[in-house]
Amino acid sequence: MFHNFSFVENDMNKKPLILVTNDDSIYSKGIESLIEVAQNFGEVIVVAPDKPQSGMGHAITINEPLRIQEYRKFGSIEAYTCTGTPVDCVKMGIYGILSRKPDLLLSGINHGANHSINVIYSGTMSAAVEGAVEKVPSIGFSLLEYGPDADFDASKEIASKIIEEQFQNGMRPGICLNVNIPKGKSNEIKGIRICRQGLGQWQDDFEKREDTFRRPYYWLAGSFKNLDKGEDTDSWALENNYVSVVPTQFDMTAHNEISELNNWNL
Amino acid sequence: MFHNFSFVENDMNKKPLILVTNDDSIYSKGIESLIEVAQNFGEVIVVAPDKPQSGMGHAITINEPLRIQEYRKFGSIEAYTCTGTPVDCVKMGIYGILSRKPDLLLSGINHGANHSINVIYSGTMSAAVEGAVEKVPSIGFSLLEYGPDADFDASKEIASKIIEEQFQNGMRPGICLNVNIPKGKSNEIKGIRICRQGLGQWQDDFEKREDTFRRPYYWLAGSFKNLDKGEDTDSWALENNYVSVVPTQFDMTAHNEISELNNWNL
Repeated sequence: MFHNFSFVENDMNKKPLILVTNDDSIYSKGIESLIEVAQNFGEVIVVAPDKPQSGMGHAITINEPLRIQEYRKFGSIEAYTCTGTPVDCVKMGIYGILSRKPDLLLSGINHGANHSINVIYSGTMSAAVEGAVEKVPSIGFSLLEYGPDADFDASKEIASKIIEEQFQNGMRPGICLNVNIPKGKSNEIKGIRICRQGLGQWQDDFEKREDTFRRPYYWLAGSFKNLDKGEDTDSWALENNYVSVVPTQFDMTAHNEISELNNWNL
Repeated sequence: MFHNFSFVENDMNKKPLILVTNDDSIYSKGIESLIEVAQNFGEVIVVAPDKPQSGMGHAITINEPLRIQEYRKFGSIEAYTCTGTPVDCVKMGIYGILSRKPDLLLSGINHGANHSINVIYSGTMSAAVEGAVEKVPSIGFSLLEYGPDADFDASKEIASKIIEEQFQNGMRPGICLNVNIPKGKSNEIKGIRICRQGLGQWQDDFEKREDTFRRPYYWLAGSFKNLDKGEDTDSWALENNYVSVVPTQFDMTAHNEISELNNWNL
């Protein structure tokens, strides 16, 4: 078990500082639900995109400047919209807005799944990974329900439980959690499983259409393929109505391949 | 050693099919240099962004459609511009344009470094990682020189050598290479090192300015910090004038943490 960083590193009298962001924008129901939960654990500051940023992955904005604006719709909670990506929001929060490093970063609750390979496309998870890069314990939450009015009741209970355990046990610096929650009521969910990222990919397709000038344009379409028969994956857990929790890190080295490559004639 | 997929899976009479992309746009000197090298190894098809897409990470375009356009400035080589991100270009190439799966994907040569943590921000490397997801052997090349007129002479020699070895030895499906090349002439480069991704991060900063209406806006700024004293990292290799080659994969699970998390009270 690791130290509880927030209590060790900070003044005992200070409440934990929690940075909340997402990729569906500050106007989504998912972030409201997450703020509701986060409030019970400390002082919450929100920095979230001013428009949907799904699928932005780990994009950062370097070719244009960013704007931030105060957002006053969360009662007493300090909140800002940012014109950038979810990762921009994290950088802006940590380096531009907060007066000290946050004790926890929460991203979501995403309207839609982010298990398996989706961890690399997901703005929600990229924000959490960016938190991990900054050595802030970070958790991304995603619900397997897309609609704007998705039911986050069970998600709130689960998020609460996981945040509590994070404060209890701590996480090694550089680690974040990818939490996916099945759709449905709390009593329909069978439990919480610690998983690995399942092997899967999108069988992509492009839908060709014509604009009013008869010029073609293309919509990315496709369906997710689970390529992993393991019962220890996030995809398996979700298919079987469990919450999946994948400890996630940002070292992408294929360590086992180093010895192979050392035999190349380079 | 693995099989040489291109020769095993495809008709012996067919030349290898090589998909080339980048993130600096189809108009950059880096992609021209890579096409020049790629031509010696097979049939080249180019699908590249129509504008700079640096820092786009693994972003995909899902909230707007994509356009592609034939580009006729590479002589006899089939080339297309795409309005999307580097990852969109790979998906468009594989699922929309090519008649069969490519035998090799090449991304770059990037104007600028992509070692250490930059693998997650880099459009160049995200294109290569997307190739790996599609089980296409993929290589991202980056030169440590930013300018539009960067000198790619040494890079071309090195790319040639690495591509040749890839065709000779093959790579396990799901692996791609992150190749970074020091600035300078060929005889100034000490050699090629197989490395792991070094631990590093950006010490970010936002430069605040005011527009003509006195409203603030912010430019992301910052400097890279190498946090890793290892001599087996890509950052070390480059600092010491070696080419770095990091075998890279897309499983972001922190496998060692699974047992820790299993002790949480969830």
